[in-house]
Amino acid sequence: MPELIFPLDSSKKFEDQEKIGHNRWHPEIPPVATVKPGDSFRVHCREWFDGAIVNDDSADDILNAPLKTVHKLSGPFRVEGAKPGDLLVVDILDVGPIPNEDSGPLAGQGWGYTGIFAKHNGGGFLTDQFPDAYKAIWDFTGQIATSRHVPGVSFAGLIHPGLMGTAPSADLLATWNRREQALIDTDPDRVPPLALPPEPEFAVLGGLPQSEYDRVAGEAARTAPPRENGGNQDIKNLSKGTRVFYPVFVHGANLSLGDLHFSQGDGEITFCGAIEMGGFIDLRVEVISGGMETYGVKENAIFMPGTVDPRFSEFIAFSGTSVTLEGEQRYLDSHLSYQRACLHAIDYLTKFGYSPEQAYLLLGAAPIEGRLSGVVDIPNACATVYIPTSIFDFDVRPSASGPTQIDPGMGAPHSAG
Amino acid sequence: MPELIFPLDSSKKFEDQEKIGHNRWHPEIPPVATVKPGDSFRVHCREWFDGAIVNDDSADDILNAPLKTVHKLSGPFRVEGAKPGDLLVVDILDVGPIPNEDSGPLAGQGWGYTGIFAKHNGGGFLTDQFPDAYKAIWDFTGQIATSRHVPGVSFAGLIHPGLMGTAPSADLLATWNRREQALIDTDPDRVPPLALPPEPEFAVLGGLPQSEYDRVAGEAARTAPPRENGGNQDIKNLSKGTRVFYPVFVHGANLSLGDLHFSQGDGEITFCGAIEMGGFIDLRVEVISGGMETYGVKENAIFMPGTVDPRFSEFIAFSGTSVTLEGEQRYLDSHLSYQRACLHAIDYLTKFGYSPEQAYLLLGAAPIEGRLSGVVDIPNACATVYIPTSIFDFDVRPSASGPTQIDPGMGAPHSAG
Amino acid sequence: MPELIFPLDSSKKFEDQEKIGHNRWHPEIPPVATVKPGDSFRVHCREWFDGAIVNDDSADDILNAPLKTVHKLSGPFRVEGAKPGDLLVVDILDVGPIPNEDSGPLAGQGWGYTGIFAKHNGGGFLTDQFPDAYKAIWDFTGQIATSRHVPGVSFAGLIHPGLMGTAPSADLLATWNRREQALIDTDPDRVPPLALPPEPEFAVLGGLPQSEYDRVAGEAARTAPPRENGGNQDIKNLSKGTRVFYPVFVHGANLSLGDLHFSQGDGEITFCGAIEMGGFIDLRVEVISGGMETYGVKENAIFMPGTVDPRFSEFIAFSGTSVTLEGEQRYLDSHLSYQRACLHAIDYLTKFGYSPEQAYLLLGAAPIEGRLSGVVDIPNACATVYIPTSIFDFDVRPSASGPTQIDPGMGAPHSAG
Amino acid sequence: MPELIFPLDSSKKFEDQEKIGHNRWHPEIPPVATVKPGDSFRVHCREWFDGAIVNDDSADDILNAPLKTVHKLSGPFRVEGAKPGDLLVVDILDVGPIPNEDSGPLAGQGWGYTGIFAKHNGGGFLTDQFPDAYKAIWDFTGQIATSRHVPGVSFAGLIHPGLMGTAPSADLLATWNRREQALIDTDPDRVPPLALPPEPEFAVLGGLPQSEYDRVAGEAARTAPPRENGGNQDIKNLSKGTRVFYPVFVHGANLSLGDLHFSQGDGEITFCGAIEMGGFIDLRVEVISGGMETYGVKENAIFMPGTVDPRFSEFIAFSGTSVTLEGEQRYLDSHLSYQRACLHAIDYLTKFGYSPEQAYLLLGAAPIEGRLSGVVDIPNACATVYIPTSIFDFDVRPSASGPTQIDPGMGAPHSAG
Repeated sequence: MPELIFPLDSSKKFEDQEKIGHNRWHPEIPPVATVKPGDSFRVHCREWFDGAIVNDDSADDILNAPLKTVHKLSGPFRVEGAKPGDLLVVDILDVGPIPNEDSGPLAGQGWGYTGIFAKHNGGGFLTDQFPDAYKAIWDFTGQIATSRHVPGVSFAGLIHPGLMGTAPSADLLATWNRREQALIDTDPDRVPPLALPPEPEFAVLGGLPQSEYDRVAGEAARTAPPRENGGNQDIKNLSKGTRVFYPVFVHGANLSLGDLHFSQGDGEITFCGAIEMGGFIDLRVEVISGGMETYGVKENAIFMPGTVDPRFSEFIAFSGTSVTLEGEQRYLDSHLSYQRACLHAIDYLTKFGYSPEQAYLLLGAAPIEGRLSGVVDIPNACATVYIPTSIFDFDVRPSASGPTQIDPGMGAPHSAG
Repeated sequence: MPELIFPLDSSKKFEDQEKIGHNRWHPEIPPVATVKPGDSFRVHCREWFDGAIVNDDSADDILNAPLKTVHKLSGPFRVEGAKPGDLLVVDILDVGPIPNEDSGPLAGQGWGYTGIFAKHNGGGFLTDQFPDAYKAIWDFTGQIATSRHVPGVSFAGLIHPGLMGTAPSADLLATWNRREQALIDTDPDRVPPLALPPEPEFAVLGGLPQSEYDRVAGEAARTAPPRENGGNQDIKNLSKGTRVFYPVFVHGANLSLGDLHFSQGDGEITFCGAIEMGGFIDLRVEVISGGMETYGVKENAIFMPGTVDPRFSEFIAFSGTSVTLEGEQRYLDSHLSYQRACLHAIDYLTKFGYSPEQAYLLLGAAPIEGRLSGVVDIPNACATVYIPTSIFDFDVRPSASGPTQIDPGMGAPHSAG
Repeated sequence: MPELIFPLDSSKKFEDQEKIGHNRWHPEIPPVATVKPGDSFRVHCREWFDGAIVNDDSADDILNAPLKTVHKLSGPFRVEGAKPGDLLVVDILDVGPIPNEDSGPLAGQGWGYTGIFAKHNGGGFLTDQFPDAYKAIWDFTGQIATSRHVPGVSFAGLIHPGLMGTAPSADLLATWNRREQALIDTDPDRVPPLALPPEPEFAVLGGLPQSEYDRVAGEAARTAPPRENGGNQDIKNLSKGTRVFYPVFVHGANLSLGDLHFSQGDGEITFCGAIEMGGFIDLRVEVISGGMETYGVKENAIFMPGTVDPRFSEFIAFSGTSVTLEGEQRYLDSHLSYQRACLHAIDYLTKFGYSPEQAYLLLGAAPIEGRLSGVVDIPNACATVYIPTSIFDFDVRPSASGPTQIDPGMGAPHSAG
Repeated sequence: MPELIFPLDSSKKFEDQEKIGHNRWHPEIPPVATVKPGDSFRVHCREWFDGAIVNDDSADDILNAPLKTVHKLSGPFRVEGAKPGDLLVVDILDVGPIPNEDSGPLAGQGWGYTGIFAKHNGGGFLTDQFPDAYKAIWDFTGQIATSRHVPGVSFAGLIHPGLMGTAPSADLLATWNRREQALIDTDPDRVPPLALPPEPEFAVLGGLPQSEYDRVAGEAARTAPPRENGGNQDIKNLSKGTRVFYPVFVHGANLSLGDLHFSQGDGEITFCGAIEMGGFIDLRVEVISGGMETYGVKENAIFMPGTVDPRFSEFIAFSGTSVTLEGEQRYLDSHLSYQRACLHAIDYLTKFGYSPEQAYLLLGAAPIEGRLSGVVDIPNACATVYIPTSIFDFDVRPSASGPTQIDPGMGAPHSAG
């Protein structure tokens, strides 16, 4: 086990730990630890809501999830010698749930959760079709996840950090705030909102001096979106064995990370769509001096995915095009096409006995693949979603004999939004 | 070899064959042949431009590609007993270039092509960055493709039909025309256009009686977009061994297909982005009576991809978010995110010595994977593109020693749009 | 299609063709064609018994299979400039059944066969347990094989040449004859024999002058075993996309090949265990001058397998150790361990309703994997055999509910030895 | 984390722990713990030599390795209700090095070792060619192993238990002793020996009453070989996610296990050929009542391997036949064929700069695949060994430009036997 440079005590809140992380992006948040190129180290991560979501059969916690408090991030970690213009090489050596804690009230202690957020509290990819709050609890048995709320499936974890990135420079932060505010301004009262401006309430800024707190909290960027620094990319393939290359914008790079997922489908479609959990991650860092210019990597992370993902050979796949549910033709809109493909998959799964919400939660959590299959055939983009057939306990393929009927059990807990 | 029910003579034009196919969708185009459920049969396919694109080092043919003439489709094939509401099961038993013709003037005779269309003639995924016409010729050696216009790479073919589908009913056709015209009407003079209305010029309608020709040609839908009947989905994974389930909208199903690709990247990003060719395909059909309702498959094809695709273990991957090149923030636009991911990949490859056009052509033709990685993290969707590293003759991974420099050779033929 | 340099007419016997191949190894058999390094070319191959095994429901043809007549090889092909000490690089560009002939009396015309040889006529891996002759006919539908004699399974072809190699030098041939005769001499009357000495009867020696025939036929090596020149290696993974490196022992290398298989399990355990067929193969050759010394490759072929094999994710696997069926302990005998593993697999499959012979034929023909798992744990070697579960139409995994019972159909044709 | 039912303190010897395991097989060794069908539990495992092999640059410890003391096994674990005739279902939920101990003197604390045993002390697969003792230390960085003694390679762990099995009945034990002694008696003074008889010296028998110790130690079977109960199968694919089915021979099944490997090549060819380590394993057990008869699984374990093994696409492969190094022809001896294939691989790797011992150690430790490719082509069996090319830092493929020369570094520590 590499040296643990950011410990978390599961019995304490995120803000009461020995070392305090952060939940906003800002270049002035001071590093909590320093590592050298070539170093390996372990970091604990808290689940993104710091315990607000519990292992029960109600979705009230999802309905009222405190979005201003996220994401609880570990870091920043300063890398000696890293300077703006470099590429920070991050190897994900290992990643998993909270070590040696197999049961308890905190996601990551032997269990995790997937949520469909209510439309008035963040929404999700299919929020118009699913405006209320729903939840699924997943139990971990070794590397396998199963759920009492979504029976009939089990799958090996594709464990990864949903969020990892370097600190923005002051200039880059200003760019983010400017361009996101401009978007918000186009429809400031939209529900759910178009973007999230800086929010001082519930900001956690690590070891920032109190004197700077109000200013920085008023400038610091929210952590929801992925941006030039990586950030909340929610790329399910950033699993064990992956090497990521991040642009460096500040001296020391100031790497932060969190939002671990036990599994996720491409897109993380229910918003809180992965199987959320706390846990640990082991990293090793290197620096490619001047690498941003050398490799033309200035605005986004690049990566080489690991080779120990769960292996699937057979899939049932669904396609969608950029026509709305109301029948309106949109122009090459792959986002809409993927929505339609996912809705087609949900329709299909309900024929086997699942409720639409169970199917939606499953697509968020299972290692489904979402592809941009055709993006040029005007006016219809074609997106596809591939579901591995071996995650089902039953034969999920179409046949002349019709779909098997499963017992959907208690269903997914529901709280009307 | 199954019975050849749709032969094509490589020395003759598509309209001069023994059996005439079609290049528009319409329920009244009469079947050219009838098969029974359980039958296997072979079909020849002509490349989509019927020989207009040639094996040379100029892109003038791409610049002037006759878009009104596409796609040259084989069919329709009537399936006995299939009726509206059924699912047509299509097994792709085999598919390949023109059999026993290894050289000649027709794409599929030992070679194929990829084109970047000029902005004024159809454009492509990155048409604002690449407004001119470019071409790459690919030579087939067995299952391997290489190109004198894109040196340093070789890859096994992921051969598939870009286009396959059932005939629309009259109602469905009317829906298509109505919704696409409504889109066109929002910006009727746009270049490239938002969608393509029915176009009598160059319409080929198989054995349709002359008396009906003008009416039908004025109603028949263009074949560019994928729609409820499948159509031009350009799903690269529809390769050998795949089973597809199409909704049936007319009696007999009336299956048609064409636009074979020797290989393609997810998205077919250069528009003519696959390696285009003519060839053959062996199919077997079955019918699931009433399957549209039974399985909830009413608006799009579903499929189970084959298991003999080329196998890759290592990838270099690029991410993109929904911020325009000008820095404007868009709301969860995965289409834009994929454009940005592809542009990042192109920037990266140019550091090794490729021209941007070579890199763009490569991404269109090679079996790259395009993923909808994050679709809910407002305001930024995250899309990713995965390039298999083993297709390169050199080490394409980032390292402290910097990128290898390749010899880009003659480059990609160019014709200013 | 590369130039066809060795055509075969399916309506004529192997010895009546325009170009005559051979069925023995000898350095003096003259080349039938000459190719240059870098050339691609097509070769037709006749199935190893030249039509003696037919598509019916009797095993009499297997019982009386004319072993002295095999293998019918295409070649030798001289490679310009190749000289002793070089490595001959052979790319398998493509390989398949007889092109454009989907039905007919010759294996490769839409069908192939697997045989269990009788103990008195060659035997097989489990000949003591299966002393009689059995046969299974496999039908090809596209890339898929199924059998009326072994119902309940289907699998994609892993098509490969069972036999390919360079000509031996006179010295090497003498070594073969000397060492194999020494083995035979230890038990000259054994049934089945320990090895096969030169056999003038039924020898086919291509274009060898009649004056040399008797001498050469009396010296030429039989083609059954693999040897330093490659030869009948029966490596199932020598499929499309594979690159093989053969030692060169004579000027021109004199490459020959044949014994195509539509599929095979590791070991080809029923002797005629693959799915035997005739067909075509497209090759490209290169030469690494002096490569035998440079790479230490002097006594056997090395190869890089292709990457388009059928992909399987789930297997049911059986282990065996080096204890005989009679309970005698042998010392680290992996051959015996694999026999025991295969017998365990057969026992298991009979619990689902197969006859032992059906299970044995299946293990010979399907793409099973045979592994040398432990070779040092005295006194028991451990070998394992992995059967892909997805080749079965039913669930073949053990469970508390016990094995599904299949309908074994007519069973495997049988002729008492 | 499941309940830890067999803890080991890394600072204490195996015999000084709170719960004492065993290093011999005998039905009377009492269970150390009891579990129920459906239970998940964690077990610690000590490396097989209990710390005798150290992390240094000498091979003296390998030369003098105390073979009478192995294997240090955890267990037996009684499974409630399991009875003779049942099948014990064991799911490997997780397995890894010693948790939370990243450095220290015990293999499994961040490192492991591979040894070539001297011929006079156990030998190995190629002991005639490698009669002396050699060692390689492997360092673990996350899931990746590298070695200062074998530079130029790195690979992800394929972690598995080398040894797992149920207790023999008294009858079965007697059978083992009888048949193995009969083998020993054929050459009692052989070096290395043909098999290992019961050995009271250094026997560890768990909680067996002292009064029974001498008798049981004189009867108990050594743990080196795999047998009907599973045992030391050294199947590298018994990794995380695998389900194994063991025959049950005594009431309670009495499952034991140990000999964890961080990685291993098929065959574990250097005897101590895996990367040996201590660690933990999480298991879940079920029972199929009467399963031995129901599924015909009476003499050996069967298993379904996991799906998260490291994924490789490209291999360089070597073949071998059953001719001895002295040129003697043997009859269908796959064990010999695999020796020859491995020697060919070693010869090849030395051309790149490795010493033969480095290459041999690498083949033992890396995830190479050993296949029984042809087992019926008299007189030559054909075995093949596949080395993944991506484990090398350099291009290991043959080419016209000849092999890259690596720096072999300090080489493998050596102690003359």
